[in-house]
Amino acid sequence: MKSYGEFDFIADICEMFARIPKNGFEGIGDDCAVLPMGDEALVFTSDMLNEGVHFLTDKSSAYQIGYKSLMVNISDVAAMGATPVATLLSLALPQANFGEWSVDFMKGYHAASKKYGVKLIGGDTTKSQSGVCVNVTAIGRAPLNNIKRRSAAKVGDVIMVTGKLGASAAGLRDVLSGKLTTRNAKIHLMPEARVEEGKWLGEQPEVHAMMDISDGIASDLEHIIAASKKGAIIYEDLLPQAKGADFDDALSGGEDYELLFTVDKRSADELARRFEDKFGKPLYNVGRIVRGNGGCFDIGVEDANGERMYCSTGLGGYHHF
Amino acid sequence: MKSYGEFDFIADICEMFARIPKNGFEGIGDDCAVLPMGDEALVFTSDMLNEGVHFLTDKSSAYQIGYKSLMVNISDVAAMGATPVATLLSLALPQANFGEWSVDFMKGYHAASKKYGVKLIGGDTTKSQSGVCVNVTAIGRAPLNNIKRRSAAKVGDVIMVTGKLGASAAGLRDVLSGKLTTRNAKIHLMPEARVEEGKWLGEQPEVHAMMDISDGIASDLEHIIAASKKGAIIYEDLLPQAKGADFDDALSGGEDYELLFTVDKRSADELARRFEDKFGKPLYNVGRIVRGNGGCFDIGVEDANGERMYCSTGLGGYHHF
Repeated sequence: MKSYGEFDFIADICEMFARIPKNGFEGIGDDCAVLPMGDEALVFTSDMLNEGVHFLTDKSSAYQIGYKSLMVNISDVAAMGATPVATLLSLALPQANFGEWSVDFMKGYHAASKKYGVKLIGGDTTKSQSGVCVNVTAIGRAPLNNIKRRSAAKVGDVIMVTGKLGASAAGLRDVLSGKLTTRNAKIHLMPEARVEEGKWLGEQPEVHAMMDISDGIASDLEHIIAASKKGAIIYEDLLPQAKGADFDDALSGGEDYELLFTVDKRSADELARRFEDKFGKPLYNVGRIVRGNGGCFDIGVEDANGERMYCSTGLGGYHHF
Repeated sequence: MKSYGEFDFIADICEMFARIPKNGFEGIGDDCAVLPMGDEALVFTSDMLNEGVHFLTDKSSAYQIGYKSLMVNISDVAAMGATPVATLLSLALPQANFGEWSVDFMKGYHAASKKYGVKLIGGDTTKSQSGVCVNVTAIGRAPLNNIKRRSAAKVGDVIMVTGKLGASAAGLRDVLSGKLTTRNAKIHLMPEARVEEGKWLGEQPEVHAMMDISDGIASDLEHIIAASKKGAIIYEDLLPQAKGADFDDALSGGEDYELLFTVDKRSADELARRFEDKFGKPLYNVGRIVRGNGGCFDIGVEDANGERMYCSTGLGGYHHF
């Protein structure tokens, strides 16, 4: 018998809370919860990072952990097409971490917050009897019409990403082998959220579904096709691989924090041109949305000859590393 | 040299973030952060509970920990005069706690949420290499005019509380000596937030400053007089002691989660009458706001003969237990 795990638990929670009124919030299933307020929307997301699970204090500096804690949360806000405005930070620290470690952590958290003008509005500081535990809740705002949802992908949409993929997965290998200062190691330890890009993409009506790449494009795309009840084809030869990353890193490596979105095929080239004018970097066309039912059998990888592999036929890396 | 602790850390954080724009949020210092939106306000609070610090898994059931995690957060929302509408829950669990423990935790969290119609809109579930770590972010709404702040106390105001005090401190003694099922132990393990009372008090313009009693009335009153730049006198003979609690428990015991507020002295009796009509229980007049500068020397306890003790003269219990 399979043991009771995280996904069973989340399913139980959803069922349990189904009968409590929504109090104005949209249903769950996106990178953030959405609260429409007139023509505007507020979005909310919360992520917990634990010592020994999400970071190792002997591999990451306190500054890097602080920086990353903020970035991974505002990445979820950007993925909705919203602008991050504030966070609440909770921090449980062993006694030994008060002092230099905690101040360095906050310097990293502050540097990331300052970069995008995100205010720290509250939170909690407490002692821990065991390791460091960090929780960040991020709040974003956007015109309601700008909010992008995973469920909005349409058949024929072009699938795009905002940058090359796999650097973080390659960087994790470097980190685990003790090479903490390579370019990819730094990308893994101090990722950048695509805040300006997310806001701008939110303003473009031809952009349909959007999310950030936290678990790898193959795995994250599953969420979009499941929510949209569609299928997806990824182009093997067009998937942009970061320097030092291989195809598997790009397809299945986590924590890239690039934005993954679908766009009306008639507008895709023009969107890419305008994006490059604004941000000085390209968008990458990595696939297309096709008919399907949103199951994992509905994602395929197509090579340059038009041959396809599905996850059922050996495309292994669809899950968290 | 005094070692660097929680309060030094919080002071450093405040200074660090002072130069980031407020993005529409009010300044910090209340039970919740406040975001005015037209005639309405949203309020936000976040609290972390850690195994071995805030609870012991051999003294509290998972159900009780879940119940309490929700209640302590919505108590902060109620203390602003707002109605809790939603929470985000992050939960780090050792592998052994997935399954029965986690489901019981959620049953308690759900029971508390259902009682006040609070929706669970998001969060995070993750593995922990060490103990259980729980973080709750609560969101509340209210008409902007209803929001109560700690800084609003006026000289001459009557100080009131919504219930008898000290039960939780007495209950903690019971719990630590292994008596887990006494009335006070249950109050300690499964506190009740004053949700309806907070909302109603928010609607009364004669109520000035408000907060919840989480650290003991003497300690919490310090926050009100510091924010209001006033002094306060607590009446020794009028401080309502819960059954099984002594004067020190009532004065300095934490986690009562009753509401502490100041009210215009001309309206206090009438307010108490209307409160009792509505809720079937009394308000307690426990002191008055006087001139002062908001320092800890500005709080005194006055006995029935009008004699006063100040914290400088041996009133010891002004701090967390």
